Amino acid sequence: MMTINQYIEANKDRFLEELFDLLRIPSVSTDKKFKDEVVKAANFLKNSLLEAGADNVEVCPTQGNPIVYGEKLIGKDLPTVLVYGHYDVQPADPEHLWLTPPFEPTIREGKIYARGACDDKGQTYMHIKAFEYMMKYGQLPCNVKFMLEGEEEIGSVHLADFVRANREKLQADVILISDTSMISNEIPSIATGLRGLSYMEVEVIGPNRDLHSGVYGGAVANPLNVLCEMIASLKDERGRITIPHFYDKVEELSPAERQAMSEAPFDLETYKKELGIEEVFGEEGYSTLERASVRPTLDVNGIWGGYTGEGAKTVLPSKAQAKISMRLVPHQNSEEISQLFAAHFQAIAPKTVKVNVSFHHGGEPVVVSIDSVAYKAAEKAYEKTFGRKPIPKREGGSIPIVAMFKRELGLDSLLMGFGLDSDAIHSPNEHYGIFNYLKGIETIPYFYQYFAEMSQK
Amino acid sequence: MMTINQYIEANKDRFLEELFDLLRIPSVSTDKKFKDEVVKAANFLKNSLLEAGADNVEVCPTQGNPIVYGEKLIGKDLPTVLVYGHYDVQPADPEHLWLTPPFEPTIREGKIYARGACDDKGQTYMHIKAFEYMMKYGQLPCNVKFMLEGEEEIGSVHLADFVRANREKLQADVILISDTSMISNEIPSIATGLRGLSYMEVEVIGPNRDLHSGVYGGAVANPLNVLCEMIASLKDERGRITIPHFYDKVEELSPAERQAMSEAPFDLETYKKELGIEEVFGEEGYSTLERASVRPTLDVNGIWGGYTGEGAKTVLPSKAQAKISMRLVPHQNSEEISQLFAAHFQAIAPKTVKVNVSFHHGGEPVVVSIDSVAYKAAEKAYEKTFGRKPIPKREGGSIPIVAMFKRELGLDSLLMGFGLDSDAIHSPNEHYGIFNYLKGIETIPYFYQYFAEMSQK
Repeated sequence: MMTINQYIEANKDRFLEELFDLLRIPSVSTDKKFKDEVVKAANFLKNSLLEAGADNVEVCPTQGNPIVYGEKLIGKDLPTVLVYGHYDVQPADPEHLWLTPPFEPTIREGKIYARGACDDKGQTYMHIKAFEYMMKYGQLPCNVKFMLEGEEEIGSVHLADFVRANREKLQADVILISDTSMISNEIPSIATGLRGLSYMEVEVIGPNRDLHSGVYGGAVANPLNVLCEMIASLKDERGRITIPHFYDKVEELSPAERQAMSEAPFDLETYKKELGIEEVFGEEGYSTLERASVRPTLDVNGIWGGYTGEGAKTVLPSKAQAKISMRLVPHQNSEEISQLFAAHFQAIAPKTVKVNVSFHHGGEPVVVSIDSVAYKAAEKAYEKTFGRKPIPKREGGSIPIVAMFKRELGLDSLLMGFGLDSDAIHSPNEHYGIFNYLKGIETIPYFYQYFAEMSQK
Repeated sequence: MMTINQYIEANKDRFLEELFDLLRIPSVSTDKKFKDEVVKAANFLKNSLLEAGADNVEVCPTQGNPIVYGEKLIGKDLPTVLVYGHYDVQPADPEHLWLTPPFEPTIREGKIYARGACDDKGQTYMHIKAFEYMMKYGQLPCNVKFMLEGEEEIGSVHLADFVRANREKLQADVILISDTSMISNEIPSIATGLRGLSYMEVEVIGPNRDLHSGVYGGAVANPLNVLCEMIASLKDERGRITIPHFYDKVEELSPAERQAMSEAPFDLETYKKELGIEEVFGEEGYSTLERASVRPTLDVNGIWGGYTGEGAKTVLPSKAQAKISMRLVPHQNSEEISQLFAAHFQAIAPKTVKVNVSFHHGGEPVVVSIDSVAYKAAEKAYEKTFGRKPIPKREGGSIPIVAMFKRELGLDSLLMGFGLDSDAIHSPNEHYGIFNYLKGIETIPYFYQYFAEMSQK
């Protein structure tokens, strides 16, 4: 028998090659033209689970993209881990900014560059390889179930239906998710909070057609100018969001919690330098770490309208559009915030335009307890493989399904993420460290071991 | 011999067919991919001039698109009319909003629908057909020169060089241009003023790459939000432009002039209804007609950044861009205003971003005298064909070359436009009334006749 370290050493080339094959599939869920690729990625994972030794593996159809399910049940009295991951990825655009093509994985300086390398194909595939090891050497200490979806990047549209329809089958003791980041490769951390999300799209409509800016300019409200004014008014000079009642339910951290956060390793100068910015910006009275994790946000994710081609066109356009999303913090509710946004955006529209507001998707904020058996088992596993205790850390991103799992299955999730904030997920040149990929594969079996042991106590 | 009316009656189908052939050429000057089409349109006009009887016709190369020149010189002691027109057109986009394809001219309800139908292929071609009539029946009463360019929609980039290099050849008594509009088919008008233009492009750059809006949102300035805030700040709540010194040189109309303008036929309810808007918007204290003609403007002509595809992408983008143009009124100077804009836009940029400002093109505002022989001859010609005296009217659009002609050739221009504001130039479904096209062909020979007669007095 090999130890997990020996097994990784002997198989790491294959582990990389297999992941590369998965990364070559452009399974972009937000764009329908990649529909076939999404299905291809699902089938790839089905085969990977089968080869690793899972039973009852199937690609379960949904109204949208399929969910890959597989399991290994070894004993009714043993605890059960339900592994969640997602095989869909963000769009690769702007593609011209990638140094190497987004769907041709390339290694540079010890990192795998590809869309999905970290988020979440790399982090999902670690679990299958860790499972492969445990199966191969009879080291699986508990039951395991896999549920790998293809709609995480578009709001897990059909996952709740699947979960509701399979409540019995999905029963477990904890949900294990690797879709977050650590502080650094030297300082492991476990995510203990996630922000929620409300993602909106707005349309500002002025005249019934594009107009000549000379003939009509100055006399007719320009929807592009109006949209800019409306967006600008959504924050005040202190960086506070102006939507009425937006902050009503926002969890305020205690001075002790803020103190603890301020002690987390963070260097503002390095942060600014790494992003190439001279100054940071955010809500007055909060630190950068707080702004990026425990405070809500409002960001324009996309804006367009008028003439955007080469050269100049003197047009006063009929329409302006934007995608605007808000990150939410504990106690805020995604649907409620979406409604507050829509009502406010309509209310601030001048009479010169018509406004349409629609809702893309959302998710609820989450706080993870650090007192659970699962958290303590994970803490011990990281200590074993990293040589130091992980730090509990609030994350700024959203994994909306964590709140849904709690609601529908009554289960808590454990967020064992091995990525780094600098992995450029959702950006050009997304990457994932080979160190991180292999460290994940190494740490996961220890988690299973400790979780099984500690559950029995 | 036929009268011009009889000639039009006998030839109108051919006049339309020939114009349709010209309209089928997508001579879009702002987009390099149409380069060959632009040259094709120039050659088309060369042939039209030759067939109508012009001498010395040539397609003159420039550093950019060629200029078509032709002339008929019949006597040194006779006055000379220099006809200016342009054969390039605006881009057709958004193409999906056209009811019939932009480069397949179609007649609906007495109107020719096509990109360039009015601006300015239709209005240019009238002059060639009027010239054809005068040549055919020995009715040309003075010398005529044609100068038809292919870069009007991109700021006539190479026309000034051409004019400077051909000062002798271009000597004339007046420049005749049909590239403006009338009040209505029942109420003819002659343009007596044009606004100038400064067309800028701005770029707001934040982080050195697109970021995940969850990981960084709230902590890093979002260039899209910043651009919106900067644009919003360019106007105050009274609709006044906030760029320092922007209004310093703006011509203020006398109460008498404002009174005269207020008596021009205009119905605000019809105007709003025709545009499908509930309310107009513009600078406080001025009427809609004033806002659209004698007051300067600032309009966003295009904006883009972030994710603009289908669905949602939670990105905090690296960059935001916009095209912003200002219409200028007499005494404002395009270069000076462009510099004021650039300096102000840099000055209001927060330290969280970098800003680039570039200049596309511009043009100076113009006022045309109503006391010239040319104006009085035109007035008489319109009275002859429309049965009523034309009203002098300030226009909101820009024909930057009018100021350039004055500067380089010392010549005044006469703006005999036959279009309507509702012709949707620069918009989808641009059109030009068959009535207007033929009325132009009918009126132009009378202008030549009266201009020659009145010049001799």
